[in-house]
Amino acid sequence: MTWPLYRRTAVTGIGWTEYSKESKRTVLDLAAEACQHAIEDAGIDRSEVDSVLCYGLGDTPHPHAVASALGLPVINYYAYYYGGGNVCVATLGTAAMAITSGLAKNVLVFRAMNGRSGQRLGGTGMEAMFRPTNEAQFTFPFGWLSYPQYIAMGARRHMIKYGTTTEDFGHVAVTCRKHAVLNERAMMRKPMTLEDHQNSRPIADPLRLYDICLETDGACALLVSSAERARDLRQPPVHILGAVQGGGPRSGYAFDGFFEWDDLADLYGSYIAPTLWSQAGLGPDDIDVASIYDCFTYSVIAQLEGFGFCKPGEGGQFVRDGRIELGGALPINTHGGLLSEAYIHGLNGAVEMVSQLRGHAGARQVQGAEVALATGFGVTTGCGVVLGR
Amino acid sequence: MTWPLYRRTAVTGIGWTEYSKESKRTVLDLAAEACQHAIEDAGIDRSEVDSVLCYGLGDTPHPHAVASALGLPVINYYAYYYGGGNVCVATLGTAAMAITSGLAKNVLVFRAMNGRSGQRLGGTGMEAMFRPTNEAQFTFPFGWLSYPQYIAMGARRHMIKYGTTTEDFGHVAVTCRKHAVLNERAMMRKPMTLEDHQNSRPIADPLRLYDICLETDGACALLVSSAERARDLRQPPVHILGAVQGGGPRSGYAFDGFFEWDDLADLYGSYIAPTLWSQAGLGPDDIDVASIYDCFTYSVIAQLEGFGFCKPGEGGQFVRDGRIELGGALPINTHGGLLSEAYIHGLNGAVEMVSQLRGHAGARQVQGAEVALATGFGVTTGCGVVLGR
Repeated sequence: MTWPLYRRTAVTGIGWTEYSKESKRTVLDLAAEACQHAIEDAGIDRSEVDSVLCYGLGDTPHPHAVASALGLPVINYYAYYYGGGNVCVATLGTAAMAITSGLAKNVLVFRAMNGRSGQRLGGTGMEAMFRPTNEAQFTFPFGWLSYPQYIAMGARRHMIKYGTTTEDFGHVAVTCRKHAVLNERAMMRKPMTLEDHQNSRPIADPLRLYDICLETDGACALLVSSAERARDLRQPPVHILGAVQGGGPRSGYAFDGFFEWDDLADLYGSYIAPTLWSQAGLGPDDIDVASIYDCFTYSVIAQLEGFGFCKPGEGGQFVRDGRIELGGALPINTHGGLLSEAYIHGLNGAVEMVSQLRGHAGARQVQGAEVALATGFGVTTGCGVVLGR
Repeated sequence: MTWPLYRRTAVTGIGWTEYSKESKRTVLDLAAEACQHAIEDAGIDRSEVDSVLCYGLGDTPHPHAVASALGLPVINYYAYYYGGGNVCVATLGTAAMAITSGLAKNVLVFRAMNGRSGQRLGGTGMEAMFRPTNEAQFTFPFGWLSYPQYIAMGARRHMIKYGTTTEDFGHVAVTCRKHAVLNERAMMRKPMTLEDHQNSRPIADPLRLYDICLETDGACALLVSSAERARDLRQPPVHILGAVQGGGPRSGYAFDGFFEWDDLADLYGSYIAPTLWSQAGLGPDDIDVASIYDCFTYSVIAQLEGFGFCKPGEGGQFVRDGRIELGGALPINTHGGLLSEAYIHGLNGAVEMVSQLRGHAGARQVQGAEVALATGFGVTTGCGVVLGR
């Protein structure tokens, strides 16, 4: 059965700001700049843009504030998803739905954050996110406060169950850095060795400093249009072939669900991947380049398994021998990922996939790339989108 | 041109909890109860429910937490909209999109809040909502802090420009109370006279206590299914005929946009109503019963104008002569609305419209009701849905 939205929409514009540790600007200013660049990149008149979507955790400007800043004449569909990595590229699926449902014509999707100088997500400030359902009362008294601590549990479980090693985690970090060196946008361009990774300071055992993503001030944006409109715009259209978001049973709110799962080494991927591949009429072997949500090195390994690039437990081996590097069978995070380009909460990975499919990725171009995957990770829940020329 | 989603989905289940000032329960517990009731009302097996949507301002449980609490086997689409009245019934449109796009089969939509005993929205706690874009720095120093103060500006402007009176506002309050008396769910069942309204204490001139909605602990939920599936479920299907959300230019984030508009007496309705009526192939005259988002009495008057039930400036007259009462030409807020049933952030109005179209509204039933409108209000932005037998 063909997905009703298959190839009916396309990414027609991409934009981004400088990625830094301190923007000295409001998130509204950052969002407007990235969106403006996406509009210019598409070569579309702003009067045609009639919808704005974003996601965040109370730290992003409202879509309407951005629409006003851009001077858009009218807004026909909008959404501010309360969420993070779990919904990042899912916004592209919602854009596709809004367009094919006749609710909007050209949809801006953005993420803007002062993730380092403003509201930081990695620390104990997470508390606010837990408040409504009060799971935190069971973990905070034990000093279990932050994302790295939560994910460390899954990483350790994977090591125990499958023999995965911290060197495997290191290969992910080193690969992302290797790619970031080729990316003029990347925050981290100093080459890293496996030794550097192994010598980096422990944060939450078994995770070290270089296993954990950056914190960034910045914004990026994508414009989504109908396939018909895309044909006449400036850039080669990058079609949306599939888009899913979801999770398994007892997903809870990310961590409370995680703790209830039968196996902490299992994550969201396997629950949503079959639908995604079925929508696109493709499988893992068809993917030329991928952005795998790398909030942590371990999360890449778990997702490679979940999306079927290898079997459960084989993710560690998969990343060891250069397969995920440029020139390998499945180059991932060619921009450097959240680990080495910037942490724009996963949406920057979708921007990179569009560059790759246009053939505009310069020194880090995957030759002949025709199909790309971008994922978003929320531990027990997540999202994925398949893009194609 | 027919809306691609026209009559393709239907509300198949509704549910709610007790509405109170102090639930003594978590919002997760409230949400799960309301959703459970909606599933039972539809007579569907929970294994068929594969999507959960909600909206709120950091004060609601995440859709996944609710899915876990309900024991749903898998989640295929989910969204937590960061927003309030502006997106309340828009969630029904998103549910319709998700179903027709093949991303979900049966979608739960809920709003749960401890709006009185927990996080209250009416006071200066609003500050957090403004933080990202910092408009508050221009208003807070002048003591301009809360929703009633903002809306008072529009109400006063309407009075000056059109001769609308506080008695007109009073007619809205008295009508809602009159209906609430007939509703066993309603928090306020003591009859109210126009004199009571006029004698109620001033809050933000020209708004008095009885011009302002309740604060409530509680939850309500709706289940949306495909039209095909709806045919075999327990209740008479209530189809979605149209669904829009949006706003005009310079909408900003509700209030900052409001202050930039040419005319404070103008609100969001006129920008989205034409699309809504065109989707449904209907006009204001076809509406048998309506839920008009009544966070304030004034907002009802402005929306009656915006959606075309009367001309701009005539909203005051429109509500004077019983037209909006049961038995009148356009009965509104037959449940008592946010003013007298409960403040479940607008979604309770959609629940009531479903009861009406099923013919299940008991003492407050609008005889022969076939088409209903439910709106949501975010000052410069908003949403609307047209439902039909």
